[in-house]
Amino acid sequence: MANPSLLILPGDGIGPEVMAEVRKIIDWFGAKRGLVFDVSEDLVGGAAYDVHGVPLADATMAKAQEVDAVLLGAVGGPKYDKLDFSVKPERGLLRLRKEMDLYSNLRPAQCFDALADFSSLKKDIIAGLDIMIVRELTSGVYFGEPRGIFTEGNERVGINTQRYTESEIARVARSAFELARRRGNKVCSMEKANVMESGILWRDVVQEVHDKEYPDVELSHMYADNGAMQLVRWPKQFDVIVTDNLFGDVLSDCAAMLTGSLGMLPSASLGAPMANGRPKALYEPVHGSAPDIAGQGKANPIACVLSFAMALRYSFDRGEDADRLEKAVEKVLADGVRTADLMQNAGETAVTTSQMGDAIVAAL
Amino acid sequence: MANPSLLILPGDGIGPEVMAEVRKIIDWFGAKRGLVFDVSEDLVGGAAYDVHGVPLADATMAKAQEVDAVLLGAVGGPKYDKLDFSVKPERGLLRLRKEMDLYSNLRPAQCFDALADFSSLKKDIIAGLDIMIVRELTSGVYFGEPRGIFTEGNERVGINTQRYTESEIARVARSAFELARRRGNKVCSMEKANVMESGILWRDVVQEVHDKEYPDVELSHMYADNGAMQLVRWPKQFDVIVTDNLFGDVLSDCAAMLTGSLGMLPSASLGAPMANGRPKALYEPVHGSAPDIAGQGKANPIACVLSFAMALRYSFDRGEDADRLEKAVEKVLADGVRTADLMQNAGETAVTTSQMGDAIVAAL
Ligand SMILES: CC(C)[C@H](C(=O)O)[C@@H](O)C(=O)O
Ligand SMILES: CC(C)[C@H](C(=O)O)[C@@H](O)C(=O)O
Repeated sequence: MANPSLLILPGDGIGPEVMAEVRKIIDWFGAKRGLVFDVSEDLVGGAAYDVHGVPLADATMAKAQEVDAVLLGAVGGPKYDKLDFSVKPERGLLRLRKEMDLYSNLRPAQCFDALADFSSLKKDIIAGLDIMIVRELTSGVYFGEPRGIFTEGNERVGINTQRYTESEIARVARSAFELARRRGNKVCSMEKANVMESGILWRDVVQEVHDKEYPDVELSHMYADNGAMQLVRWPKQFDVIVTDNLFGDVLSDCAAMLTGSLGMLPSASLGAPMANGRPKALYEPVHGSAPDIAGQGKANPIACVLSFAMALRYSFDRGEDADRLEKAVEKVLADGVRTADLMQNAGETAVTTSQMGDAIVAAL
Repeated sequence: MANPSLLILPGDGIGPEVMAEVRKIIDWFGAKRGLVFDVSEDLVGGAAYDVHGVPLADATMAKAQEVDAVLLGAVGGPKYDKLDFSVKPERGLLRLRKEMDLYSNLRPAQCFDALADFSSLKKDIIAGLDIMIVRELTSGVYFGEPRGIFTEGNERVGINTQRYTESEIARVARSAFELARRRGNKVCSMEKANVMESGILWRDVVQEVHDKEYPDVELSHMYADNGAMQLVRWPKQFDVIVTDNLFGDVLSDCAAMLTGSLGMLPSASLGAPMANGRPKALYEPVHGSAPDIAGQGKANPIACVLSFAMALRYSFDRGEDADRLEKAVEKVLADGVRTADLMQNAGETAVTTSQMGDAIVAAL
């Protein structure tokens, strides 16, 4: 059988630096665990714009459709801020999500014991936190038509359309229920059914999928504004949260910041199964391209490393290897090895991006 | 000159209880400060539905248009959960906002010294917090057309429309800049201009209003997802935040919960000036109708009392009286007088809703 294939898109800013560390990990799994990948690399975001004039070339898009999994670093930077909407770095990422139909975005918000002090929240509120936000990623107001800036009378009008079909809601709900069964068996669905009809449909469909296919999972519904409150008040009340593209964007970032260390958080974006049974998949850290610290060896590669761990788990059915990698990261942290963003107390060892990668490899 | 007029809409759940305490305060200002109001009272929400079959009768709507200010308690309750969308208690509130054209919703998130321990955030992050969220309240996805649940092929589709005109954005931006001038002189505007054209227009118009009319105010722009993160990370970086109806709903609730005591937070919803120069105005606590504790004397009336303080400040140009009322509330808290939701330490005195109202009157 052919080796599983990986497409690496380092992107902009700190993307290339953190991805270099992930490659060390990939090599380790090849050498020590017989898990050899066919790895190719290409451009996305500003890096692609600089070469091709678009944030994702068609050839790259085609490659992404063929591989078993895509690993992405980060996109964007001040250099590209003034570009037209249609060629901004973000459009490259949005095109990947849309054309690969990656409808289920998994965003764990997890608090590492060694880092509990980092949170702006009190320790008892945050210690041991382990929730999973499942965000719909290919529809809603991000993609709905009509959209644009129009002229009406003598003024401009900005329009976007929130649009969800029953099947779009049902498939991401299934994804959340499946995950819940392997975790705490609890799903909370969030919308604004009190003011939006699309929210009413969302709530109805999630409930129907539950009643027909997942009656064993505990399901609750919450308005998204209350959801934001409850995340701040007592996040451990949640196991899996499922919500739409826009609420998911805001609520998952809110949840991510509860942990206080963005440099630690991975994500997976999954689509339908391919012919080989693996889902279409893209893995990326939650953090951005951090242009202010790019190229200085200061970036924390852990979020990107943990994104690869998610790839092992969700694309390659290597749950044990994913656990092994996650444990290696925990050990390194417990040993007090820290990139600049994680330094806090005396007795910790400050390391560069590359040294952090080496430490994780050593811990493996 | 005629007395200024107030329409009181206690609404559902704990609404009537907390409003009863506000009436004690109103009476005190009449007796002791020569500020006599013509007060009338009417129904809204479930209470109106029970009598009229609609959550806001036309006659009540007409009255609201005529008075100098409306004070609202809260709407909603499990009894009304199964009602049709069009007659749910919330529709009464949304009708008031829309027909009075209350486009500027002021939601202070303020941490009272005596209650800093209530927050789920660490004390140094939250102590002294005083930010003001200005939420657009009469447009956006709450009201945009087309909207509804339609059938396409053999499935349902839920649709809502985010729609903002230039003038809608400009007027709420002005409201934020005006407020900033009387506070820390800083405005941060939040949208998703990286994915939504309505966000691009929002950003452009806010910037234009700033450059032409308020160049002295410090203006920054932030994506709403990052805004949620920054609120959790270091909320004191903000002074005034201005954002649209939907982001404002979620972000203001997130900000409210940072303080840890929802029972303390008031809000004002302001429209254009009337013939007498006063803005159309509705004042209401941020908390909901709390049906679980309704009728038991457990509700905290302070958010509703502080909403009346906002009325004194924004409708009646009685800034000093507003300060006096806010100081009275602070004193009562500092003295350890607490409704059930605020009890925390030994040495505090547990009081009922009514006793809390009396304590505030005594402190005045
Ligand atoms: C970069 C941006 C387009 C993107 C989004 O809004 O989805 C980001 O915020 C995210 O959450 O992955
Ligand atoms: C009750 C509901 C319609 C309302 C809203 O969504 O605006 C509430 O959440 C608020 O923030 O005042």
